[in-house]
Amino acid sequence: MAHYRVPQRELRFILNDVLGFARLSELPVFADATPDILDGVIDEAARFTEERLLPLRTIGDTEGCKLADGTVKTPPGFTEAYREYQEAGWVGLATDPEWGGQGLPYTLGKVVEEMVCAANVAFALYPGLTIGCFEALLAHASEEQKQTYLPKLGSGEWTGTMCLTEPQAGSDLGAVKTRAERLDNGNYKLNGMKIFISSGEHEMADNIIHYVLARATDSPDGVKGLSTFIVPKYKVNADGSLGERNGVKVQAIEHKMGLHGSCTCVMVFDDAEGYLVGEPNRGIMNMFTMMNLARIMVGFQGLGQAELALQSSQNYARERIQGRTLTGGSGPIADHPDVRRMLLKMRALTEGARAMAYDIAMQVDFAHGAEDPAQREAAQDWVDLFTPVVKAFCTDLGVESGLDAVQVYGGHGFIAEHGVEQIVRDAKILCLYEGTNGIQAMDLVRRKLQLKGGALVEQFYAKVEQALADAPDERAFLVEPLTQALAELRQTTTWLRERFNSNPNDAGAGAVEYQRAFALVALGYYWLRMLDAATGHPDADFRAAKAATARFFARRVLPEAGALLTQVRAGSDEMMDISIDALCAA
Amino acid sequence: MAHYRVPQRELRFILNDVLGFARLSELPVFADATPDILDGVIDEAARFTEERLLPLRTIGDTEGCKLADGTVKTPPGFTEAYREYQEAGWVGLATDPEWGGQGLPYTLGKVVEEMVCAANVAFALYPGLTIGCFEALLAHASEEQKQTYLPKLGSGEWTGTMCLTEPQAGSDLGAVKTRAERLDNGNYKLNGMKIFISSGEHEMADNIIHYVLARATDSPDGVKGLSTFIVPKYKVNADGSLGERNGVKVQAIEHKMGLHGSCTCVMVFDDAEGYLVGEPNRGIMNMFTMMNLARIMVGFQGLGQAELALQSSQNYARERIQGRTLTGGSGPIADHPDVRRMLLKMRALTEGARAMAYDIAMQVDFAHGAEDPAQREAAQDWVDLFTPVVKAFCTDLGVESGLDAVQVYGGHGFIAEHGVEQIVRDAKILCLYEGTNGIQAMDLVRRKLQLKGGALVEQFYAKVEQALADAPDERAFLVEPLTQALAELRQTTTWLRERFNSNPNDAGAGAVEYQRAFALVALGYYWLRMLDAATGHPDADFRAAKAATARFFARRVLPEAGALLTQVRAGSDEMMDISIDALCAA
Repeated sequence: MAHYRVPQRELRFILNDVLGFARLSELPVFADATPDILDGVIDEAARFTEERLLPLRTIGDTEGCKLADGTVKTPPGFTEAYREYQEAGWVGLATDPEWGGQGLPYTLGKVVEEMVCAANVAFALYPGLTIGCFEALLAHASEEQKQTYLPKLGSGEWTGTMCLTEPQAGSDLGAVKTRAERLDNGNYKLNGMKIFISSGEHEMADNIIHYVLARATDSPDGVKGLSTFIVPKYKVNADGSLGERNGVKVQAIEHKMGLHGSCTCVMVFDDAEGYLVGEPNRGIMNMFTMMNLARIMVGFQGLGQAELALQSSQNYARERIQGRTLTGGSGPIADHPDVRRMLLKMRALTEGARAMAYDIAMQVDFAHGAEDPAQREAAQDWVDLFTPVVKAFCTDLGVESGLDAVQVYGGHGFIAEHGVEQIVRDAKILCLYEGTNGIQAMDLVRRKLQLKGGALVEQFYAKVEQALADAPDERAFLVEPLTQALAELRQTTTWLRERFNSNPNDAGAGAVEYQRAFALVALGYYWLRMLDAATGHPDADFRAAKAATARFFARRVLPEAGALLTQVRAGSDEMMDISIDALCAA
Repeated sequence: MAHYRVPQRELRFILNDVLGFARLSELPVFADATPDILDGVIDEAARFTEERLLPLRTIGDTEGCKLADGTVKTPPGFTEAYREYQEAGWVGLATDPEWGGQGLPYTLGKVVEEMVCAANVAFALYPGLTIGCFEALLAHASEEQKQTYLPKLGSGEWTGTMCLTEPQAGSDLGAVKTRAERLDNGNYKLNGMKIFISSGEHEMADNIIHYVLARATDSPDGVKGLSTFIVPKYKVNADGSLGERNGVKVQAIEHKMGLHGSCTCVMVFDDAEGYLVGEPNRGIMNMFTMMNLARIMVGFQGLGQAELALQSSQNYARERIQGRTLTGGSGPIADHPDVRRMLLKMRALTEGARAMAYDIAMQVDFAHGAEDPAQREAAQDWVDLFTPVVKAFCTDLGVESGLDAVQVYGGHGFIAEHGVEQIVRDAKILCLYEGTNGIQAMDLVRRKLQLKGGALVEQFYAKVEQALADAPDERAFLVEPLTQALAELRQTTTWLRERFNSNPNDAGAGAVEYQRAFALVALGYYWLRMLDAATGHPDADFRAAKAATARFFARRVLPEAGALLTQVRAGSDEMMDISIDALCAA
């Protein structure tokens, strides 16, 4: 079986000792968010996750979702677990208290999310999309719409979806064809088909609120003609009770590589009643409210899967006895240097990614709750810059660590009952949805590097430089390669920003490698901060592991950044010059 | 659907133009192996593969194998396809004509194998293991055993297995517990359990010959106490007819990540009658006869899967229209630079790997058929050196390209019906069986680099240096980085060979990275040779694609080698110094 226990010590270390979680409680809006609250949330959520969600992980995979009688039957136990989760208040932990939420920091919501996504990432999608839908309506819906939908979504009594993709409109939402015809009463009638709709139909909650991207009949073509609509599964009466079934139905569910516990629906809108959200033709902007937070959420899904892979590998490697070590020992395979290499690689990347991910979460809270507008702006800049990086890096890491875990298990890793091959299958979708990781890289290179004349990335460099300058001499093992990597990243950033104007294909061709190099430099920065914070940790094993993992990162991971950046600067000419026929002929 | 057509032009290019296939027909033993024969084999095997095996790929995955009534039901259509394949003579294409084979070069057998492994890798295991069993018996069995088993195995009328692994004995075969008790008549009685036995039980052939590693009751512990035995499913009467059912039974079949069309059996030996093969206590040596060729075979399985991923991606990328390109075009996604990056990466690695793989196949033929003993020895040295590299690199490439293919397909890649997620699931086992890729790396570093005082690797360097020296000026784009990578590889090889003696953990910790860097340098060498050979190719698109792909390799792939070698030379101290508790604590 895959092995997972909530990494409580590590979570407290990252949040309290590295990132200064207590700073949030200095913000008036989060006055209650003390380290005590953090402890309480970790304890309670850990219990629920380990006892209730982890055992359903395998069941979700093997039983999957089934389409029958016009609805979707989720895997045995999922509905009961969802109801307990919802009743315990986990869905609304970080949502606006004006709408029934607990109003705790976004960061705390991510703590719970990491756990849930490690233990059962398929389950995590049901509340995850619900919160996404809630946030989008909170930002753009009318007061009346908020009154009708937010309390039920924020509490998780109803669940939500995000209906964007159509067969011909994936990365290119401008091609959306679903039509919305305005009726005399101001409502709309929607017709069309959406695919890849997570949680599109099920019976876990009393109602499902679809947040739908569609084109009003009088709107132009392209992205500028799209609007967003609420389409509830059951129409809601004026008194809040549920009315008649709306014309939105599941037509099929997909057979997928993994994530079997999450239903991925083909939804048909057949004269479905819908309600315009916000201004017409602002749909793409409205969607991005939801999408940006959703991208961070997906980053945490990847982080959770990476942690599951790491812990499973650690657990197996310390128990499995096989062969003699190179120095003649007969201990567990964790003493084989190649197994240690895999364990330390997973650990160096996962712990670094966790620091990066919770830092962005903290910045979301500061962007929302800081009193000083300059601090809010700086925090939002950080969020904007790091959203694609966290999404892409953490999700790639989920797959990469899943594959490493299978390798640590050897042939047994390929067998379903050991539970690690499922990580690869579940995690791969994370690299694809909410914008493929290639799209994330383009967002980083085309938009985020250009914003404010490059000021976002300069803010990041300044932080890394400060950390490098502050580091004591004994950190030279990391300071030296990180200084070099940062210099190459700066140089390549300048090159990319120039090329983006002179030859955009150069920027596009190197975006993915650039994004990974960027993330590795960021991880180097967080490893410096983790080493600082670990100095005073009471547990000698903990300090030793942090020191060894940081060394591994510096000497055996970070060199990759230089190679990636060299690849980026190779440009695109040789790639784009040949014809498609020459490119694609076997 | 995944897309595959046998890459006939590329196969002919690699074999005829790059590697000089016609040289084989100068060997007396292969006088018939002319380019005409190559053409005929490619044509015929391509037809069979595309028409009969490719359509069964999805069926194999979705239907899988089923255990019922003490036997295994293979997926619908597999038995019929196997019989046609066998009757057409494909199983015995390259086996010894003294035992009913066609005696064509091993290289030609690999040509067929690449196709079969691309179209339906699960199917490929049934004939693949059979040939492995044949080769082992050919090398070690008595004349009488050969008479009994070889004609039927060589023709594929019976199939074979390789029974090594037990729950406690995977990478460490010294821990094998299956016991063989010598009877008065000279036969043995075997008792024990074997796991992960591909093709262990099925009804595709009249009999199954198990080649079993077991410990005779009077043999010592450890690897030096193991012997090999023939254990037939049905005992064979003196007249060659089938006798009574032997005491070897399937107990269970595994539920696996992929390769569902191939049954992976738990086999129980319950007083099974077995016959000692060769000398007692020489079992490990005997197994390695089979294992070395099996490792090359698995490399071809990886190559086939990589080609399937490449072609599927090319096909999808040229047809799928989505969004505008960075230069404002509205063509297929193949015009997006990030998609081109993935296509060219897959292509640069797959085409390079193919050259490397067929070169080792040609060397197997020279090692067997050359008249000059020095040529035979040099060829065998090449085979010994490259066996782990081909196995590990090509199989890692299968998984890597499968993941890239899913990424090219976007969200659709995650959906089973598109057929590319299956590549990831099918290919991952290739990195695990016949020795994990970590074991391959250790074989390269611990054994192959040390053989003959390092002469094997020097022979390889000399070839690369010659190719570099011979390259015309216009290849500087590749010559320069390859010269540098070779210098770093040489330096790191010297470092590793020294460290292997002073601190073996250093060698173990860097073995996997070293192996990949070694392969990348080899691919650079083959790209030089491919560029030479392509000069005179009549098709302008072909020449353009080779030139662009070689540039991509030089500028956007090869830089990875330097980073990998830097990582290797970081050594292992920081990794091995911490306790297992510190290493594995969450």
